[in-house]
Amino acid sequence: MQTLMVELDERSYPIHVGPGLIDRGDLYAPYIAGRQVMIVTNETVAALYLQRVKAQLGDYQLAETILPDGEQYKTIDCVEQIWDGLLAARFNRRATIIALGGGVIGDMAGFAAACYQRGIAFIQVPTTLLSQVDSSVGGKTGVNHPRGKNMIGAFWQPRAVIIDTATLESLPPRELSAGLAEVIKYGLIRDLEFLAWLEDNVEALRALDAQALTKAILRSCAVKAEIVAEDETEQGVRALLNLGHTFGHAIETDQGYGRWLHGEAVASGMMMAATLSARLNDLDAAALARVETLLRAAGLPVHAPEGMSSERFLELMRLDKKVLDAGLRLVLLDRLGQARVEANVDEALLVEMLNAYPRATLARQRDDSIG
Amino acid sequence: MQTLMVELDERSYPIHVGPGLIDRGDLYAPYIAGRQVMIVTNETVAALYLQRVKAQLGDYQLAETILPDGEQYKTIDCVEQIWDGLLAARFNRRATIIALGGGVIGDMAGFAAACYQRGIAFIQVPTTLLSQVDSSVGGKTGVNHPRGKNMIGAFWQPRAVIIDTATLESLPPRELSAGLAEVIKYGLIRDLEFLAWLEDNVEALRALDAQALTKAILRSCAVKAEIVAEDETEQGVRALLNLGHTFGHAIETDQGYGRWLHGEAVASGMMMAATLSARLNDLDAAALARVETLLRAAGLPVHAPEGMSSERFLELMRLDKKVLDAGLRLVLLDRLGQARVEANVDEALLVEMLNAYPRATLARQRDDSIG
Repeated sequence: MQTLMVELDERSYPIHVGPGLIDRGDLYAPYIAGRQVMIVTNETVAALYLQRVKAQLGDYQLAETILPDGEQYKTIDCVEQIWDGLLAARFNRRATIIALGGGVIGDMAGFAAACYQRGIAFIQVPTTLLSQVDSSVGGKTGVNHPRGKNMIGAFWQPRAVIIDTATLESLPPRELSAGLAEVIKYGLIRDLEFLAWLEDNVEALRALDAQALTKAILRSCAVKAEIVAEDETEQGVRALLNLGHTFGHAIETDQGYGRWLHGEAVASGMMMAATLSARLNDLDAAALARVETLLRAAGLPVHAPEGMSSERFLELMRLDKKVLDAGLRLVLLDRLGQARVEANVDEALLVEMLNAYPRATLARQRDDSIG
Repeated sequence: MQTLMVELDERSYPIHVGPGLIDRGDLYAPYIAGRQVMIVTNETVAALYLQRVKAQLGDYQLAETILPDGEQYKTIDCVEQIWDGLLAARFNRRATIIALGGGVIGDMAGFAAACYQRGIAFIQVPTTLLSQVDSSVGGKTGVNHPRGKNMIGAFWQPRAVIIDTATLESLPPRELSAGLAEVIKYGLIRDLEFLAWLEDNVEALRALDAQALTKAILRSCAVKAEIVAEDETEQGVRALLNLGHTFGHAIETDQGYGRWLHGEAVASGMMMAATLSARLNDLDAAALARVETLLRAAGLPVHAPEGMSSERFLELMRLDKKVLDAGLRLVLLDRLGQARVEANVDEALLVEMLNAYPRATLARQRDDSIG
């Protein structure tokens, strides 16, 4: 087991990473506030891991909320189910929520914790690569709205994050690849050395090599923690974490939640951001090719969805919350390993890039990648 | 106009108090983050003041959410209406919410602001005495749940509070009295001199004397601000602000939201806390009589609801979020002007007090008070 401390003054917390950690009751105990524990999970994850987690918590008053599996259930209605469960169990403000599952479960359980009696403790037990490297750090919680992703939410920090790398063995390969999109992002925005390591190790990661996974997860969390520590409430440098996300959110909204995985949409979005950076002469052709090669090697799409027009991209991007009242803000690359926020993107250039950017169905791109 | 600064480091904000302030556009402008303003109000207050506030905001992109009037509408459904309105207007994270109304509107609009895109600016324009002296300070926002009051919410600070004392002229006398319950509370828990001033000025306050109102509002906000500054997230001394509230919430829940006004339930609850303090020999008979005389002079109930059993009190008090996993915590009085948290109230003594405590219908108590 290796541990990374996320330093946030009185809200600092540990991220433990290693195989078999969900069976380590001693890792949960120090972070459970009172005697009441609510486990929030989904039907898929419950079948795999719920009993094992409960077996470690026999001394507590336990309750559970098992939600349906999928991004389309990341709604205020599901969060209300958690609140109803907490109140039905008569849990007080010293109760603790354990989020057992991927990012959707973590975001909803964290938001439920943030707002139950104005804030209770929660512990993250992320079981997908995406949530392990993305949701473990930053304190973002919330739900989607029919008009946009993550529109309702709060900043709320976990007391601890427990990452069991062995849970990735039950993860579909497609979701592992989606998680790798965020891992690659950390290399692209801030760490050229890590990016090069990923180019050498992407096959080992896809083959679930434990040592490679541990390094990739820890390094990803460390990069994110550095950035978040500099900017906890997302006024400045933290915006760099959104590389590919404005394009990606547009893809997800257009396609309907859950059709493209978040990581797949972000991968395609990062490729679009890199392409725009190349048009601005920040990236040369060789650098752009490295981005595409690595994304493809990770099993990720690099084209936009078939049939999604440039106009549709612009329409959806304008609603994105990273777009301020004036101008069009995007994260672009100065070079590999260094990103910047471009506050006033030239809309004509953006449209030109969007028009020229290749489209393909997701299925076709996945066939290419697997083949 | 007088101004009190609430000191909370980078989240410090002013409370402006005086007649005619809702027509002062110059007071809003410095605290509006971007160009988008959503006014949240209810049907009653909209008819009286909405056009006047809008007249001051002609330069902004305006939207409004008008909710039904009453504590029974303090629900997550109404907060969702605000979120839907913000999204329908395509407001981004630099939008500002103005809460125009009493505590119910302030709590819901504040909660909507806390969770819209993980937090946007809001300005309080409280139009009832209760909300002016209670909701202006402390950052508590949220909604009720069928199983309990204020069970869902967040801590979120306003950018500014604008209190127009002239709005109290449109307030029913019964609601003015309910607001005086919280004013009296500040004297009881922390300021004997202010309590004595209230004994001398309660008639002037009920007659809406502008000078007396301004002093009472400012002093109440100042006492609360002192306490909140010491303890922003309610771990310690802030619990004193709950004098009478554990009993009061039980009354409100038993009677159904909106039948007893919050301030009426708190008044009766403070009398119960004072009575328990007298049984513990902290208050003498003369001090207890002063509490009762002042509450009656303010037009407030001092008995529990007719037919509400001691068992029912205990059942509902155990769900109250101020009651921790172990023991029964109540705020009691050491003496007039000084309160304490009693962490392990003797349940037998509590039951004895509850059994002996007089019951009367609210209507009967109001008749007594008016007569």
